[in-house]
Amino acid sequence: MSESKEKPIILVTNDDGLNAKGIKALVAMVKDFGDIYVVAPNRANSGKSNSITVEVPIRIKQVRDEENLHIYSCKGTPVDCVKLALNKILPQKPDFLVSGINHGANTSISVLYSGTMGATIEGCINGVPSIGFSLNAFATDADFTESIKYGRKIFANLVQNGLQAGICLNVNFPNNEIKGIRVCRQAIGRWNEEFDHRQDPFGGDYYWLTGHFKNAEPNAEETDEWAIQNGFASVVPTQIDMTAHDLLEDLKKWDYEIKD
Amino acid sequence: MSESKEKPIILVTNDDGLNAKGIKALVAMVKDFGDIYVVAPNRANSGKSNSITVEVPIRIKQVRDEENLHIYSCKGTPVDCVKLALNKILPQKPDFLVSGINHGANTSISVLYSGTMGATIEGCINGVPSIGFSLNAFATDADFTESIKYGRKIFANLVQNGLQAGICLNVNFPNNEIKGIRVCRQAIGRWNEEFDHRQDPFGGDYYWLTGHFKNAEPNAEETDEWAIQNGFASVVPTQIDMTAHDLLEDLKKWDYEIKD
Repeated sequence: MSESKEKPIILVTNDDGLNAKGIKALVAMVKDFGDIYVVAPNRANSGKSNSITVEVPIRIKQVRDEENLHIYSCKGTPVDCVKLALNKILPQKPDFLVSGINHGANTSISVLYSGTMGATIEGCINGVPSIGFSLNAFATDADFTESIKYGRKIFANLVQNGLQAGICLNVNFPNNEIKGIRVCRQAIGRWNEEFDHRQDPFGGDYYWLTGHFKNAEPNAEETDEWAIQNGFASVVPTQIDMTAHDLLEDLKKWDYEIKD
Repeated sequence: MSESKEKPIILVTNDDGLNAKGIKALVAMVKDFGDIYVVAPNRANSGKSNSITVEVPIRIKQVRDEENLHIYSCKGTPVDCVKLALNKILPQKPDFLVSGINHGANTSISVLYSGTMGATIEGCINGVPSIGFSLNAFATDADFTESIKYGRKIFANLVQNGLQAGICLNVNFPNNEIKGIRVCRQAIGRWNEEFDHRQDPFGGDYYWLTGHFKNAEPNAEETDEWAIQNGFASVVPTQIDMTAHDLLEDLKKWDYEIKD
């Protein structure tokens, strides 16, 4: 342990669960940079956003403990994993957090639904320089080779330059050869939902949530969605302050006088 | 139905569930403004953030259908409720969405964890002028009298002035007499977690997530947390674009060259 204390501690998590190929790729990406603690959900937690578990207790177990690689399985959300890692598992506050590599892109407003980014934002809230990585491919056996190469370059920049408080990175990779890395803003868009409506044998209605992403600005080259659709890895600096500062003065002009 | 089509359609939801006192207060707040559709979770969904249900189907049933008041119970998250309402339940796109009134404040970074704000943000993503309301009191029988009065004033402003695309409002009420309404920014802070560690009869570890909010800037009068701690209702314009635009140029200076 005395040796490992000199190395940076890197917390690794995801939302696809501990058995996903993407988290193994992420460990491969960062393992040469420090002492790796993996604390990840025991099963898929896609779409879990920043959610926390408050109604049931959270379970955790250590599944591997080698030099420089310590793996814990957690029955909770990605954010639960980060909170437990910071408060109960890690020997000290980690130097870095990485989340992913997600099977599926988290560009545009998907940053708001993503468990991968939920965990990343949780690291950021707690003052840990954090990056979420996603690949634009849902396949269980997706090929992360290029993602590892480009992700390692981005992570090396984080190690060298750090990040200011309140900011984390949302990184997305295209599902093909990568032409380069682009710093982007979040694209404007939304998911068009198509609920599959069924009835159970007892007459009860139920719905499966499906849908596809609709990009509202497909030609905006400065956006993350454009980048991954055109062969580039996207890097979006993402902030935890959701205040629309530009609107504060306008909103102060509303009429707030209560006449009793 | 012909009459009601001339009135605005208002979608009402929450994260505390259909039986919470807070959602009844919210219906009382807005009922004179239009035709009310309540689509809310059948049970408590606190801390569910922007999460969506993808692994199990979502169930829904109508529990009340009166003139101007239509109530649906949904076995899903607050965001599921909004998606189903917009795609399957409402006769047309709603004119407004209100969420809450939450039992418990959602100031500062709690905007990121809150199911109340998750539903509000979902409305915003879909172009519906949306407000999330929260009261700084967790009690089941909390007193919403003042919240209704001040919330109605804020809602009347929304009806009159609208909101620009990509912006919703996060409104919080203090748990006492309200001195007035303040337009604020999101306070900087975080939750200090204290996990209650226990063992089950079979030796398995489990943890209950508890904690308290730690305000990093308790004297910042322009923040939402200061407002509610000092007797004011807070109104934070909240944006769905999480890009840290100020950092884009800095990040472009990182070294992204891959040397093969």
